[in-house]
Amino acid sequence: MVTENEVMNALSQVMDPEIGRSLVELKMIHDLKIAKGGKVSFTLALTVPGCPLRDQMAEDARRALMALPGVKQVDIAFRAMSEEERGFAFAGRQSPQPRLNQFNQATHFIAVMSGKGGVGKSSVTALLACALARQGKKVGILDADITGPSIPRLFGLPPGGLRGDGNGMLPAVTCSGIKVISINLLVPAEDVPVIWRGPMISGAITQFWNDTLWGKLDVLLVDMPPGTSDAALTVLSALPVGGVLMVTMPQGLSSMVVRKAVHLANELKKPVLGVVENMSYYTCPDSGKPHYIFGPGHAEEIAVMAKTEVLIRLPIDPRITELCDAGKVEDVRLAEVDALAEKLLIAAPIQIELK
Amino acid sequence: MVTENEVMNALSQVMDPEIGRSLVELKMIHDLKIAKGGKVSFTLALTVPGCPLRDQMAEDARRALMALPGVKQVDIAFRAMSEEERGFAFAGRQSPQPRLNQFNQATHFIAVMSGKGGVGKSSVTALLACALARQGKKVGILDADITGPSIPRLFGLPPGGLRGDGNGMLPAVTCSGIKVISINLLVPAEDVPVIWRGPMISGAITQFWNDTLWGKLDVLLVDMPPGTSDAALTVLSALPVGGVLMVTMPQGLSSMVVRKAVHLANELKKPVLGVVENMSYYTCPDSGKPHYIFGPGHAEEIAVMAKTEVLIRLPIDPRITELCDAGKVEDVRLAEVDALAEKLLIAAPIQIELK
Repeated sequence: MVTENEVMNALSQVMDPEIGRSLVELKMIHDLKIAKGGKVSFTLALTVPGCPLRDQMAEDARRALMALPGVKQVDIAFRAMSEEERGFAFAGRQSPQPRLNQFNQATHFIAVMSGKGGVGKSSVTALLACALARQGKKVGILDADITGPSIPRLFGLPPGGLRGDGNGMLPAVTCSGIKVISINLLVPAEDVPVIWRGPMISGAITQFWNDTLWGKLDVLLVDMPPGTSDAALTVLSALPVGGVLMVTMPQGLSSMVVRKAVHLANELKKPVLGVVENMSYYTCPDSGKPHYIFGPGHAEEIAVMAKTEVLIRLPIDPRITELCDAGKVEDVRLAEVDALAEKLLIAAPIQIELK
Repeated sequence: MVTENEVMNALSQVMDPEIGRSLVELKMIHDLKIAKGGKVSFTLALTVPGCPLRDQMAEDARRALMALPGVKQVDIAFRAMSEEERGFAFAGRQSPQPRLNQFNQATHFIAVMSGKGGVGKSSVTALLACALARQGKKVGILDADITGPSIPRLFGLPPGGLRGDGNGMLPAVTCSGIKVISINLLVPAEDVPVIWRGPMISGAITQFWNDTLWGKLDVLLVDMPPGTSDAALTVLSALPVGGVLMVTMPQGLSSMVVRKAVHLANELKKPVLGVVENMSYYTCPDSGKPHYIFGPGHAEEIAVMAKTEVLIRLPIDPRITELCDAGKVEDVRLAEVDALAEKLLIAAPIQIELK
């Protein structure tokens, strides 16, 4: 007959895919019983109630145990950890205050920034996230635009869609598996204004990182609001951002404000990983000719100033606008953005052991 | 021979055109001498050093005095008031702390708002100001976008172009006489970032009203930054704004954020005077056909929600972008904006005795 030790050994190979640590290490296995005839049963205590990966973890555990000689049947019950248990589960990390972000990890932690509003930071962030997800990466988007959040709308995520409690939040998950945190997932309707002064804005942004169970990500993108005030300062100085992707558009007026953002990134010692020029041109459907409706670009100047390069130029395309407005950004596929995703991961510094 | 009394009576009809009060009332006349042969001389003490209206006031004074029987010659010297004199000059207003804005008046005080960035608040503000100036109005623009100021660039006003000292500031004046205050008139170069948290942003905005000698204006337009945080709250609650002009663009994503701004205006009891839809369409230069490149508009919905109407729709026009980028917004003339200027003044509440 199989021993308790063998079972626990097998389960120590099964990971919580969000946290990236084993069920045993996380003290999730309770009431283990091994009955005659090779029947193994236990309760899986989930770190967060209603964990969306519950069934995946159970299936992984079942497979690991069924592979052991002598195991014929595996029965798994579920419950949520108490707050005390969760503290205990995470206590091995020697933090006096067990926090959800203890196990948050992002190999690349990139802020998508512009300084200027309306140049398409959110669209670029969303399109980039989709391209990365298609390339098999685990992607998260932290929407740091508290007063003008656009990410949920782009992915068709409804207001009030966040799960969580006083202990923390779980990101919403899009159709293609991208994890999203945004203030517009917390408000009752998408057009409810968030009328907060700076310290509240900064507090919300740090909570979006510290009190959210992101788990293990390949890439976390931060969609920045316009400006070089509280939100930008908090993202670039309080979060472990490794680099900045700068988004601009052709208008000279816009590029002037984007240069302010480059100066801010320089001042806070965050490398600019590249420049994206959005709304570069519009291809006339009648003649097929490109029209430079916002004038000639200044992306090269920005790239030179930021000691980086222009990674891609994106067109204005009414079909893309339409899909974005309809919450179907995941249906957009642009070869340019696929290329951007690849270039960016080469440029982005790797973050180890984030906190 | 003319008497001192007759001279002072005549000068009490001469106004400081910025402050809207007479030279006598402002205690600007010093060392008055009446010599034989009808020669009147005095020193004009200016409230602000280097006052740009110095020569105009002197000319007005000269004319008023030359009209008196017996006056053959008028000699005027200039100096700046001491701080004490200025306090004394303004003391009649019974404020314990004489402040420059004691004489600031704006018949209409209108915030140009959007919530969303990049929809063209600044362009609309500038074009509207030009149209009002062409209609003979005295217009000021308070650029409340501290981290992304665009107004100076649109009018070709150079960085560092503000005059003033610890006692206050004088707005820069554009070619067509529009008075402008913007943080980008204070920074050494236009792309120097202003890295301030909320309280500093709010402080700068209130100073732009309180510590600036705007004088008497027909219309003061406030160019608001994106968002519903510090800057928006300060403009709508600490400045005597009478109403809000809401700027939007067709994209559904943008109109969602604009609706947040409408809710904010409602909450702070500021009437929305009308909606401007910017970037409504692009007229293809090849076919002459309008292309709705950002999709169908949602301006009507916003207007209904804000209990107002859509005042105008503006096209995307590369020629306008080019003029704006070149600092020549005053060369743009759009019949739609002329109409907007007229409609707006009818809709805007009249402010009496602002402070």
